[in-house]
Amino acid sequence: MKDRWEERTQTPLLVLAVAFGLAYAVPIVAPGADPWVHRLCTHVEWAVWAAFALDYLVRLALAPARWAFVRGHPLDLLAVILPMVQPLRLLRVVSTLLLVGRRARMAPQITLTTYVAGSVVGLMMFGSLAVLHVERDAPNGNIKTLGDAVWWSFTTMTTVGYGDHAPTTGLGRVLAVGLMLSGIALLGVVTANIAAWFIARFERDDETERRQLELLEALTVEVRELRAEVARLAAPPPGAPEVPAPAPTSPRS
Amino acid sequence: MKDRWEERTQTPLLVLAVAFGLAYAVPIVAPGADPWVHRLCTHVEWAVWAAFALDYLVRLALAPARWAFVRGHPLDLLAVILPMVQPLRLLRVVSTLLLVGRRARMAPQITLTTYVAGSVVGLMMFGSLAVLHVERDAPNGNIKTLGDAVWWSFTTMTTVGYGDHAPTTGLGRVLAVGLMLSGIALLGVVTANIAAWFIARFERDDETERRQLELLEALTVEVRELRAEVARLAAPPPGAPEVPAPAPTSPRS
Amino acid sequence: MKDRWEERTQTPLLVLAVAFGLAYAVPIVAPGADPWVHRLCTHVEWAVWAAFALDYLVRLALAPARWAFVRGHPLDLLAVILPMVQPLRLLRVVSTLLLVGRRARMAPQITLTTYVAGSVVGLMMFGSLAVLHVERDAPNGNIKTLGDAVWWSFTTMTTVGYGDHAPTTGLGRVLAVGLMLSGIALLGVVTANIAAWFIARFERDDETERRQLELLEALTVEVRELRAEVARLAAPPPGAPEVPAPAPTSPRS
Amino acid sequence: MKDRWEERTQTPLLVLAVAFGLAYAVPIVAPGADPWVHRLCTHVEWAVWAAFALDYLVRLALAPARWAFVRGHPLDLLAVILPMVQPLRLLRVVSTLLLVGRRARMAPQITLTTYVAGSVVGLMMFGSLAVLHVERDAPNGNIKTLGDAVWWSFTTMTTVGYGDHAPTTGLGRVLAVGLMLSGIALLGVVTANIAAWFIARFERDDETERRQLELLEALTVEVRELRAEVARLAAPPPGAPEVPAPAPTSPRS
Repeated sequence: MKDRWEERTQTPLLVLAVAFGLAYAVPIVAPGADPWVHRLCTHVEWAVWAAFALDYLVRLALAPARWAFVRGHPLDLLAVILPMVQPLRLLRVVSTLLLVGRRARMAPQITLTTYVAGSVVGLMMFGSLAVLHVERDAPNGNIKTLGDAVWWSFTTMTTVGYGDHAPTTGLGRVLAVGLMLSGIALLGVVTANIAAWFIARFERDDETERRQLELLEALTVEVRELRAEVARLAAPPPGAPEVPAPAPTSPRS
Repeated sequence: MKDRWEERTQTPLLVLAVAFGLAYAVPIVAPGADPWVHRLCTHVEWAVWAAFALDYLVRLALAPARWAFVRGHPLDLLAVILPMVQPLRLLRVVSTLLLVGRRARMAPQITLTTYVAGSVVGLMMFGSLAVLHVERDAPNGNIKTLGDAVWWSFTTMTTVGYGDHAPTTGLGRVLAVGLMLSGIALLGVVTANIAAWFIARFERDDETERRQLELLEALTVEVRELRAEVARLAAPPPGAPEVPAPAPTSPRS
Repeated sequence: MKDRWEERTQTPLLVLAVAFGLAYAVPIVAPGADPWVHRLCTHVEWAVWAAFALDYLVRLALAPARWAFVRGHPLDLLAVILPMVQPLRLLRVVSTLLLVGRRARMAPQITLTTYVAGSVVGLMMFGSLAVLHVERDAPNGNIKTLGDAVWWSFTTMTTVGYGDHAPTTGLGRVLAVGLMLSGIALLGVVTANIAAWFIARFERDDETERRQLELLEALTVEVRELRAEVARLAAPPPGAPEVPAPAPTSPRS
Repeated sequence: MKDRWEERTQTPLLVLAVAFGLAYAVPIVAPGADPWVHRLCTHVEWAVWAAFALDYLVRLALAPARWAFVRGHPLDLLAVILPMVQPLRLLRVVSTLLLVGRRARMAPQITLTTYVAGSVVGLMMFGSLAVLHVERDAPNGNIKTLGDAVWWSFTTMTTVGYGDHAPTTGLGRVLAVGLMLSGIALLGVVTANIAAWFIARFERDDETERRQLELLEALTVEVRELRAEVARLAAPPPGAPEVPAPAPTSPRS
């Protein structure tokens, strides 16, 4: 039941996640838009959060052991409850992103690489927008346009860090730390992927293992011949001189 | 004896280590506090160092081979002796941190990842505070607040290095080098962890090993059947019609 | 047929690729050269692109399954068609580089390390030149000479990122992001290479495998002796009293 | 012969290498020293180069196949010849460092980690000094003291790259690129070391191998019992009651 629900709701939830991204981006990229655009975006954000919260509740209801499900997914519960308690915009965004990420990890066909790559792209996009939102109004800020924000997030995640643009407010720096740590994870996954591929090729040539296989194959041949010989021994009634020459006919194996 | 001592003192020493962190942080974060606060913090620092020095001596007394223990832990001995010889504050702090770290490594349930992660967090915290302490009074310094110091230590450890804040004094730079090297270790551990996880999964699909297992299993089946056949050969008195059944009684060996 | 074509055209296409590099570099490094030099370079660029496009068509004609070839090399097709549709210089350059790179990967004797190293050197060279071309005319640009451009591309690819030189235009930053990502791949390949080499040495000392080999060798000896014994059993007609002592002569195996 | 020469000259050559380091450092750190100090340092530099060149020639003379030795060590030959042809100071330094490094790699007890660590420390020291030497006289240079140079080389090798100090001359930047590439190698070795250690621990728990060992041990027990059974079969003269005791003489194996 729970698995079928997760499988069926996967595509609509993905569509909702993309809609959430747009609803988050529009008011930041176009701050001078009509008030109804801003209001619509806020409504979409709340609606997406509500949809993911509902998904959590349905999965909870379908879970065989409910208490275990709640204890096993503490972050999900927090992400569902927090936006109601504290109607801060950034908190709601982080909560929804958390729900999207936790849900994505459940999809069985997703690999670690896909998951990290997706998280990195998502983090970079939301990080750029959030830093732009925060730093645009800072008096000494130097991240004033979307282009600067995206460029800055690239230099941060790759750990290049030119320093031509850098956040100056506390909140902007907290967001930056998140991007840096994701950048390290990105580096780790890239390296690990290449290393695993290299090592798998190295191993294939490993001499010890080849020798083991040879030995095993030789041993198998030997045991098989031994069995044939024992069978030959067993077939003719041994010690019965009245049977003249059964030996040539007996090897059946 | 020694193991029981180490196990029992683990929690109180951890509490002392946290107290040491607070006693180190307070005078730097709040330099305008009452003189008695400063004095209390200094006393706490000395007390924690004394407690760890005492722990070293007790472990030395309980060690089966004392001379081997002293030779095997030269850094601990140095960390115990140095603060008495030279009452410099930074030296005392480094000594105590060293004792805390060496002690933590002895806890059997701690893994390399936990140890590195703990060291990284500890180094970042003490590094931030120490650099703030040193750079705050530097004429050309640009690390003047705790926020700047923490932000700078993050950009350093992740090797991003924007350069918007950087130490200018000799001592501050020595501390910075420590943070950089820890950052490299952090990167290495993150990558290695992911890589090890990847490779373990790759290996599971390794064809050579699968083939070896198949061969071994087939061989085991074959040998088992061979044994059964040999047993069958031994059981009926072969070629001796007049001896009814001596065979079943003879195989005793 | 296709393999022979690929093998034979390898060297001439490499020469053409080098010519392309020169034709791309000259107008940027020496912008004040005679108009005929510029015209010659443009002709060479078009000629090299045409040669690689022709190579694609020949390989397509020689492929056993043409439709599968087209579907299996979508980037090649794009790189062949795009320059005709849109005569932008940068696009033509990227298309030709793509064709060169795809072709290089087909050479069977090339390893991943060589391929990545070659791509890195190629990207750095073209990245430097392209950024210089774009940034030289930017009003606030700080990459004005070839030396600056090469220096900047080194600090970018190694993720050092001093920030003394950094692109300021959108196109320059897009090129920079490409260099950063290549730098991460470079780091990954270097680390993976060293790690694979280390692990291969670690493995050689692996105790489990040594023990397995010992066990297998002991087992092989045992099985061989067992066969000899069975052969000895089989040779003398057992239970035939008229044959006195054939046993010493029979073991032939 | 050659091995004994290499072993015996190891310690004196190490002492000479250290002397070379001092002779290189003194004129840069103390440019205002007496002229005879400068002259002495130049003489020491030449002497050390000469000693290593002599060592090369002796090893060449002792080599079993001289032409193969020359072809197998082209860099050594270049390092021996170049300083005579072109009496540039930096070239002589690079040549001598090359000879020292090539010689160090021949020491059998040196591991890759030690070699890389040594190269990194050596490169950082010579890199700092050389950049200081070059940049001190540059009009726009910002590396004017030894402290700045060492600090800069640390920020470069760890790929942090604050950018508060950076070379501005062509030669200084070439040296910087060398340091950056060494920094990447350093990162790779650190990561690879940790990863290899991790993977070696992971492997120990590998289930497939454990299962293989269990199977092999079970198989060995089974084969041993089978041999015992065959021996038992052979021992009592089966179905021949009139032959009293030929069995004790036949099982010889």
